[in-house]
Amino acid sequence: MHLAGVCSTDLEMVRGYYPFEGIPGHEFIGLVADENGHPGLRGNRVVGDINISCGTCERCLCGGLSQCVCLKTLGIFNYNGVFAEYSKLPAKNLVSVPDSVSDVLAVFIEPTATALRILDQVRVKPSDRVIVVGAGRLRLLITQALKNTGCDLKVVVRRPEPAAILEGWGIQALTAAEVKGDLADIVVEVTGSPEGFALSWSLTHARGTLVLKSTFAGELSIDLSHCVVDEITLIGSRCGNYQAGLQALTSGLIQVGEMVDSFFSLDQGSEAISHTSQPDFESADQGLKAIHLYCGFGILIQVQNGFAF
Amino acid sequence: MHLAGVCSTDLEMVRGYYPFEGIPGHEFIGLVADENGHPGLRGNRVVGDINISCGTCERCLCGGLSQCVCLKTLGIFNYNGVFAEYSKLPAKNLVSVPDSVSDVLAVFIEPTATALRILDQVRVKPSDRVIVVGAGRLRLLITQALKNTGCDLKVVVRRPEPAAILEGWGIQALTAAEVKGDLADIVVEVTGSPEGFALSWSLTHARGTLVLKSTFAGELSIDLSHCVVDEITLIGSRCGNYQAGLQALTSGLIQVGEMVDSFFSLDQGSEAISHTSQPDFESADQGLKAIHLYCGFGILIQVQNGFAF
Repeated sequence: MHLAGVCSTDLEMVRGYYPFEGIPGHEFIGLVADENGHPGLRGNRVVGDINISCGTCERCLCGGLSQCVCLKTLGIFNYNGVFAEYSKLPAKNLVSVPDSVSDVLAVFIEPTATALRILDQVRVKPSDRVIVVGAGRLRLLITQALKNTGCDLKVVVRRPEPAAILEGWGIQALTAAEVKGDLADIVVEVTGSPEGFALSWSLTHARGTLVLKSTFAGELSIDLSHCVVDEITLIGSRCGNYQAGLQALTSGLIQVGEMVDSFFSLDQGSEAISHTSQPDFESADQGLKAIHLYCGFGILIQVQNGFAF
Repeated sequence: MHLAGVCSTDLEMVRGYYPFEGIPGHEFIGLVADENGHPGLRGNRVVGDINISCGTCERCLCGGLSQCVCLKTLGIFNYNGVFAEYSKLPAKNLVSVPDSVSDVLAVFIEPTATALRILDQVRVKPSDRVIVVGAGRLRLLITQALKNTGCDLKVVVRRPEPAAILEGWGIQALTAAEVKGDLADIVVEVTGSPEGFALSWSLTHARGTLVLKSTFAGELSIDLSHCVVDEITLIGSRCGNYQAGLQALTSGLIQVGEMVDSFFSLDQGSEAISHTSQPDFESADQGLKAIHLYCGFGILIQVQNGFAF
């Protein structure tokens, strides 16, 4: 492992929202140390798809590898992650990264692919009015991906800091109060909170599309008649294509410069998590800037620091 | 008015599920008696779009006429319907029907357009596995529309009677118990009940589409994380294009022969509603066969019979 990113999913696991036991971390760049029967892989600089699938079940064959019935997810579900010196992934999951791409940029391939997944699923037209509701770094990646379509884009922010970044990109940033009563053809929900969902739902125009980009804790109560009468489309969106993520980052279509806050070594892992989790940081739009764990040495952070994984 | 159909929406209004006061009825064929400044309309044999819209608001212009902010709906919402000798509709709502199309067939234009609306919204491919869950005549129209795409089609039925009709069309009919554990790329929910929704939800394959064709009373609790992780698309579907409905019926792509049960005159309106609402009829898949009210004479049925409209 060379470098790994801490994202809000990791923080939610620390808070106990995911029933995960093991080593967290799923955004990384590393060097293949053991090619294990796949000649030519050793020494390759790689990122890796977080979905570990059987490749043979009905859902793999018909629904895609990330939908495997026995799916494991790197550092998230039934599979140890990358906040460690070494990690394991199937050879088919690995994507080689050119030397010209820095470690920092490469760590963003996974979330960038996730952001771009929306454009695989929904045709966003220049004439569409689009609103992004939500917190965190993923929102900034999604915002850039959407901005590139030429749509009329607004983002709902909670504090002035992200507004400054967004406005630097020429994107209108509004508070929840300011956006109230507005309507969009496409709304992207990135909060994973009932309040964020309610706001997103209310902003979705008749015959519009509401993209759900974050998971929710527990069930939500929904007026499905509104969905029928107004012909709303609700679409769940998950992981994306790594080659597409790599391409968007290397071409500069998506930029990450302002999103990196600090670097920590692996033995400072606990500190990195605490830093990202601190109330100030969280209230400044939950992990707006990514914290990077430098994984050049050290031991598994949750073993050393006794996190409740 | 020549002829009107009683559909399950009318029955739900009688049961008090819709807060409607006025004359019900929205499926009809009639003759234009007063052209009211639209020369050439008088004497035309017409059906009519049930959505009465302003045509000028933001939702009309961007979302479509059936999404008007001040929408009224013929015999359903804020607008008197067609269980009467005469009814009124804006000229722009009327669609002329050729003499070669019988009154009975013409009454089916509205629900056929509603069934076909699904194909406006979802691309159904011959390789798709499709399951229709739900009761009533609309299901039989939807089933025929879907069958014509060449998809692998199954229908969940509650009793043997509809199974016989469906199997006559070469469509596999299963009970809820028989279909359990099955998965489809596209599921169409036509029950409007929480149980029907739960079954439909469980039958939707990862990356599949669940079409909601019926409204629901109250809110439903949903595990939206399932929607995100499995990338499910949920899509509400309402009214369709009347010309498309007319064409499907006249070309024989959709057939209604087996769906007509009885004819009543308008002064037998109460009897018609009672006949359709009777437990036997309802348990035989809630109005599998349409009841037609013959509207050639008589008075408004809810005035004569004191229904709680």
